[in-house]
Amino acid sequence: MVGRKSLKGDYCPSARSLDVIGDWWSLLIVRDAFDGLTRFGEFQKSLGIAKNILSDRLRTLVSRGILETVPSGDGGARMEYRLTAVGRDLFPVMVALRQWGERHLFEEGEEHSLLVERATGQPLRLDITTQDGRAVGPDETVILRVEEGE
Amino acid sequence: MVGRKSLKGDYCPSARSLDVIGDWWSLLIVRDAFDGLTRFGEFQKSLGIAKNILSDRLRTLVSRGILETVPSGDGGARMEYRLTAVGRDLFPVMVALRQWGERHLFEEGEEHSLLVERATGQPLRLDITTQDGRAVGPDETVILRVEEGE
Repeated sequence: MVGRKSLKGDYCPSARSLDVIGDWWSLLIVRDAFDGLTRFGEFQKSLGIAKNILSDRLRTLVSRGILETVPSGDGGARMEYRLTAVGRDLFPVMVALRQWGERHLFEEGEEHSLLVERATGQPLRLDITTQDGRAVGPDETVILRVEEGE
Repeated sequence: MVGRKSLKGDYCPSARSLDVIGDWWSLLIVRDAFDGLTRFGEFQKSLGIAKNILSDRLRTLVSRGILETVPSGDGGARMEYRLTAVGRDLFPVMVALRQWGERHLFEEGEEHSLLVERATGQPLRLDITTQDGRAVGPDETVILRVEEGE
């Protein structure tokens, strides 16, 4: 993405988020981290990605505070990559992407993975509501600009 | 993204979603479409993007069924780009990205945009719950593989 416009200073939170994580590989690494993967080799095997690209993306995710490195518990020199609290806050993004894919990119009856509550096997819901709990769709919303200090 | 691994046939819905919309520009175009932009020139002005890249991304979004072209109402030959029902279903993805950005990529008091309910000005909530309404975090979930026909 050399030469692209930086959105780091954009006032829109969506644009800033995409500036940080709007990369196909980065989000797949985050998905795998949520799925319990921690080691370089595990990510590489899961993603089928070149080592230099994976190194670069992992380094970026660490520098942005989404992943952190911790010594692996096996007493060796190996490091594990784990989601930070900021990274774990991407959970709703992953759930929203997953639900859209489930709904629109699979045929009826086609093999797919499903995110469920571990204890009960219940599928998850994602709801967008007002503060007092009414469901809201895109047509009922508007983007406001909040000035500095408000 | 020449030469990347295609995830079109991946059994993970998140991976397929990223295969379709996991491009920085594509998601910003979708954001602008939710914000009411419809014309090539409007997207170009908003995004500061080269015409050939914008043309390419708009064409891809139309071919994936996320945007559709309709004649503009002004009687001329111009076309407008509008979100389809499939595209409008990306609303939770945009809300989730926005909320993460609001939370982690802005300083306290820094100018930002805010998505609110038009009628009341209320900020939105995004909740992930079980079917019976209990809030669920990433640690309480697991990914199951659903075989064909199940």
